Amino acid sequence: MSSTYGENLKLSIFGQSHGAAIGIVLDGIPAGLPVDTAALQAFLDRRAPGNAAYATSRRENDQPEFLAGVVDGYTCGAPIAAIIPNTNTRSGDYNNLKDCPRPGHADFTAQVKYGGYQDVAGGGHFSGRLTAALCIAGGLCKQWLEQKGVSIGAHLSAIAGIEDLPVLLDPVNPDLSRIGKDFPVVNPEAGLKMQAAIASAKEDGDSVGGIIECMVTGLPAGIGDPMFGGLESRIAQIIYGIPAVKGLDFGSGFYGSALRGSENNDAFAMAGKDIITTTNNAGGILGGISNGMPVVFRVAMKPTPSISKPQQSISLSERSERTLEITGRHDPCIAPRAVPVVEAATAVAIFDAWLASF
Amino acid sequence: MSSTYGENLKLSIFGQSHGAAIGIVLDGIPAGLPVDTAALQAFLDRRAPGNAAYATSRRENDQPEFLAGVVDGYTCGAPIAAIIPNTNTRSGDYNNLKDCPRPGHADFTAQVKYGGYQDVAGGGHFSGRLTAALCIAGGLCKQWLEQKGVSIGAHLSAIAGIEDLPVLLDPVNPDLSRIGKDFPVVNPEAGLKMQAAIASAKEDGDSVGGIIECMVTGLPAGIGDPMFGGLESRIAQIIYGIPAVKGLDFGSGFYGSALRGSENNDAFAMAGKDIITTTNNAGGILGGISNGMPVVFRVAMKPTPSISKPQQSISLSERSERTLEITGRHDPCIAPRAVPVVEAATAVAIFDAWLASF
Amino acid sequence: MSSTYGENLKLSIFGQSHGAAIGIVLDGIPAGLPVDTAALQAFLDRRAPGNAAYATSRRENDQPEFLAGVVDGYTCGAPIAAIIPNTNTRSGDYNNLKDCPRPGHADFTAQVKYGGYQDVAGGGHFSGRLTAALCIAGGLCKQWLEQKGVSIGAHLSAIAGIEDLPVLLDPVNPDLSRIGKDFPVVNPEAGLKMQAAIASAKEDGDSVGGIIECMVTGLPAGIGDPMFGGLESRIAQIIYGIPAVKGLDFGSGFYGSALRGSENNDAFAMAGKDIITTTNNAGGILGGISNGMPVVFRVAMKPTPSISKPQQSISLSERSERTLEITGRHDPCIAPRAVPVVEAATAVAIFDAWLASF
Amino acid sequence: MSSTYGENLKLSIFGQSHGAAIGIVLDGIPAGLPVDTAALQAFLDRRAPGNAAYATSRRENDQPEFLAGVVDGYTCGAPIAAIIPNTNTRSGDYNNLKDCPRPGHADFTAQVKYGGYQDVAGGGHFSGRLTAALCIAGGLCKQWLEQKGVSIGAHLSAIAGIEDLPVLLDPVNPDLSRIGKDFPVVNPEAGLKMQAAIASAKEDGDSVGGIIECMVTGLPAGIGDPMFGGLESRIAQIIYGIPAVKGLDFGSGFYGSALRGSENNDAFAMAGKDIITTTNNAGGILGGISNGMPVVFRVAMKPTPSISKPQQSISLSERSERTLEITGRHDPCIAPRAVPVVEAATAVAIFDAWLASF
Repeated sequence: MSSTYGENLKLSIFGQSHGAAIGIVLDGIPAGLPVDTAALQAFLDRRAPGNAAYATSRRENDQPEFLAGVVDGYTCGAPIAAIIPNTNTRSGDYNNLKDCPRPGHADFTAQVKYGGYQDVAGGGHFSGRLTAALCIAGGLCKQWLEQKGVSIGAHLSAIAGIEDLPVLLDPVNPDLSRIGKDFPVVNPEAGLKMQAAIASAKEDGDSVGGIIECMVTGLPAGIGDPMFGGLESRIAQIIYGIPAVKGLDFGSGFYGSALRGSENNDAFAMAGKDIITTTNNAGGILGGISNGMPVVFRVAMKPTPSISKPQQSISLSERSERTLEITGRHDPCIAPRAVPVVEAATAVAIFDAWLASF
Repeated sequence: MSSTYGENLKLSIFGQSHGAAIGIVLDGIPAGLPVDTAALQAFLDRRAPGNAAYATSRRENDQPEFLAGVVDGYTCGAPIAAIIPNTNTRSGDYNNLKDCPRPGHADFTAQVKYGGYQDVAGGGHFSGRLTAALCIAGGLCKQWLEQKGVSIGAHLSAIAGIEDLPVLLDPVNPDLSRIGKDFPVVNPEAGLKMQAAIASAKEDGDSVGGIIECMVTGLPAGIGDPMFGGLESRIAQIIYGIPAVKGLDFGSGFYGSALRGSENNDAFAMAGKDIITTTNNAGGILGGISNGMPVVFRVAMKPTPSISKPQQSISLSERSERTLEITGRHDPCIAPRAVPVVEAATAVAIFDAWLASF
Repeated sequence: MSSTYGENLKLSIFGQSHGAAIGIVLDGIPAGLPVDTAALQAFLDRRAPGNAAYATSRRENDQPEFLAGVVDGYTCGAPIAAIIPNTNTRSGDYNNLKDCPRPGHADFTAQVKYGGYQDVAGGGHFSGRLTAALCIAGGLCKQWLEQKGVSIGAHLSAIAGIEDLPVLLDPVNPDLSRIGKDFPVVNPEAGLKMQAAIASAKEDGDSVGGIIECMVTGLPAGIGDPMFGGLESRIAQIIYGIPAVKGLDFGSGFYGSALRGSENNDAFAMAGKDIITTTNNAGGILGGISNGMPVVFRVAMKPTPSISKPQQSISLSERSERTLEITGRHDPCIAPRAVPVVEAATAVAIFDAWLASF
Repeated sequence: MSSTYGENLKLSIFGQSHGAAIGIVLDGIPAGLPVDTAALQAFLDRRAPGNAAYATSRRENDQPEFLAGVVDGYTCGAPIAAIIPNTNTRSGDYNNLKDCPRPGHADFTAQVKYGGYQDVAGGGHFSGRLTAALCIAGGLCKQWLEQKGVSIGAHLSAIAGIEDLPVLLDPVNPDLSRIGKDFPVVNPEAGLKMQAAIASAKEDGDSVGGIIECMVTGLPAGIGDPMFGGLESRIAQIIYGIPAVKGLDFGSGFYGSALRGSENNDAFAMAGKDIITTTNNAGGILGGISNGMPVVFRVAMKPTPSISKPQQSISLSERSERTLEITGRHDPCIAPRAVPVVEAATAVAIFDAWLASF
């Protein structure tokens, strides 16, 4: 199923950018878990465009309405259903996108797959707007994990090639509280440079991409499964469901592939009574199973494909090339708003694996 | 399920490194597809260690026996079952691995998860040996895709930081026949340097990692689904099931995250009556769905964790640190033998998505 | 997942009897299928209590709102989401049901499973009200099957032991149009007796059960799969998801188990160029796969457990027996309103199997 | 997937009647569960034809070989794989079955579905022989449930219309030990009559069907889920995967559909500190969830379709009717040998639901 994820929980995401509503059904959640709607709203607000220069000027009041599964502030064992009505529903003529697909978007592939029946308005089901629904599910899972001592935090590792800290957050003992609230970087100076790079791209009618680093702390050893049920597989499947993600690596990842085994292996050691590794090139995962160290991975996001510069496309009906100019409101860089989305996706994956283990 | 993959087909992999046999069940395959056992054997032989200096000296006669699902050379609609008996079954005492886990291996996490009941011999179910089973399933899917005009080929993009060609195989129009048969690189000189680096690591009792680039050509547009059913999600879930994989990116991937949208977007164009993109930074996938261009991705594999250099580990029973020396036969670099495994995993993922689309 | 059904399509049902809304997500539906909302409403109205004496006096305006997946009257390939807001939401104190469970209801088992967090109002997620949501999904699937020449019809085979026709609708060549519109029987006289039996039970503060016979005509041979994917398994899984269903048999079913093989086997014969069987004791299914004859099965529904007669129950908190009197509005017989629900469930199962076969 | 079952465990069954082997993969089983191979063999022997007059004269040595997942007598957490090699592999010409399908068998539907590529020898994947594989999985699950105090037992409720006891085994407090070891009935006299009826049918070149009643005792309340995850749905899906099953009802089932609610509702009562119901018309299941009473259901099996009497069939190639005479060894009544198969299927379903609940 294209828009369904999970094994022990089952997350179903629905909606189109300009449809009546987006939403989720989250089945398989134990009864009796508290639902903190204020904390959930605060989490969703991190994804909202706000007034940031790097964000779209589209305004959506992303307040989830719970239709089912929550009674008196607690999960009741029945599937959780929540929606966010779209106040900004489709209008105008998007049909030209069916004929002249935007480079880097799903317009062309949707046209081939759905034969013209796809909802093109605002990208339809392929829109980044759907990540608000993912944040409802992920925000809930994040709350429930936090009650078990598991924290999830992400920051901008790079924007437009500008890196956050030259040294990453210590992967052995990361301090997630160092991540900025206003702009999710550890090094504020790097953050300013990133914002300047975004502003510069916007001025040029262009866009930039970025890398998000995500960390899960407090996860006990033993979560996850071998082979296709490994934490890497589980996280990868959902992370790649976020629009614009084109890369993912764990621990030392691509960098580690150039090392020797003696450099990349993480030595086991005792820290008091706890078993740790002295480095964390494994990103907290061995054989698909958590080893008790922080789970660490990086997510590469492509530059927003919607740019106002003229681009070369084609007319599907005329089978000829033509120039396309995209108008409208777009994020010149999607990565900052995607930071909580990566956290949300991670929370769903980890909570699903957690349910399998306990 | 940890060792089960797929949506329209269902692949179940079983076995432990030193158990009686490894094998697969592959359910959901249409009846009437031919099974070329000679071609399958040739494919499996690409994974075999042979006499290469970079490979383990363990000898296994990896000949699959079909138990079910194939009659007179054709699939019969019933689940396909095939096994490879292990001639090299467990002997000796592996129990020390339960107490003193090898760095970079699943010994520790398996001990935590399975409480001492796991099969430790040769890594048990976590062993790279299980990839021979994956190659049975993938080798079959590869045959069936080839009959539909879809080819899958992979090469060593880098070993120990030594890159194959400075320019990758042209992602717009790759020539998979340029990949070497003996050592899977495009540039033979780079191949010699890679082999020298592996030999050098081996001499030092050490190991090296590498990057594998895989390409799928001939795939029509429209395969795959949005969100979690996207080709990236489908490929990622199975690729991360291969032991030692720690990174994966598609198209321009991590590199592309530093570009601007105007640089990274692939312009649409007409090539005669065909719609193409003039570049392929998307790696053939837009919105999770194939766009008709080659699917291109890179897989980062960590250096083999089994090295003969002394390493620091712990005694789980004594809760104290100790030095571990691993003896036995190991690949100083797993990446060359993993090239057909990546192809196999890709074939399973693509054939599964194909079945969903037709 | 408890409230999720399907393999090629994925149906997720959510909601509680007195929650904000009930609804569905239906993923995996091809794009371009027409959605006839008027026909869907007419189908849902068959389930509505109306003014019938045998139905509850609870009034719900069961008009589905489509939130996603349908654009301009056609499926768009994205998941379909639809809800029915509950106008009759919870009020009053249902908490006594947590302490004193109603015999024949899920109050006790829900209390054990969910530890008091379950939604008890009106039966919560266990309520028959959820079948309105099932009717949205099933009503759509029924439309799409009808366009392919597949019809689904059900009638009351028995109520309170009063049988419809002494001879069933001819299972070889049934005429579904003979089923009454107002009261779903073939024999109007039997229908009057059934209604009298229901009225009599109601008068006594009691209830009656019944048997629904369902038939699928026009289904081509070859739909379904062996073993657990057989049509019987697929239909059974969803039919048993309807509250109050306690029995199901196909073709000659329980009756046929007393026959000899020579009596029960259906002889093959030619009818012009078509292959038929001269009898239909198989209920249209051989080896789990449709054989081109009508699919025929019977569904046993228990008498409504909600009766106004005093019943013996217990106090969970006091661990002592006590007498319970249930007040409120209830159907003295659920079977008549369940007729379209059985059709809906069947339509989902058949359409799912259909998608797997084409 | 046609031959895959389960949610928390995943059972995959493979093989054809005359292929190299039949077998199972059982994934998702916790590590550390003991495997008693002698008890498993004894269980499988209950299904073996032996020398009983009612059984086929085909001889198979049904000894499972474990290929994976079990180490030193305990599950190791990896998928369990086991096979039974077929000593009685295909020979002779079964191709006439492709042209002239046997009434009551899957020959015709398999031909339509698989286009002539199906394995026809001995019924291929549709053969009752596959139930030996199901008994491996079920025999293991039965062992593990017994360790938790859950017992599963079945008996012949009826053969050829001859009933076991006029009163069923007390469904409130059944004594499974009363079921005969040699012939699985409670009333030996009824057993003799049943065997006489089978012998008589055999003499006539005919066959008879029967009803199997299965009971699960010791199951705590709270196992199972609402809607499609209910115990009825879970049990039904797997029971209908057994060849020749055409009916299933729970508790009072079809009989109860003719009762009034006041008769059919099970009153709650205290038995010391335990909560019980004074009757068990619910068959131990309310709202899909176990209520702590025995789970009780009846399975209707059609008479063996293979009879030696001449029957009318057709020639598919000539599109004309013809008379078919089936030779070979067949069970004149499959129900006695199906008794452990029903237990096995039930054990898999219950253990799967159990894993979901703990």
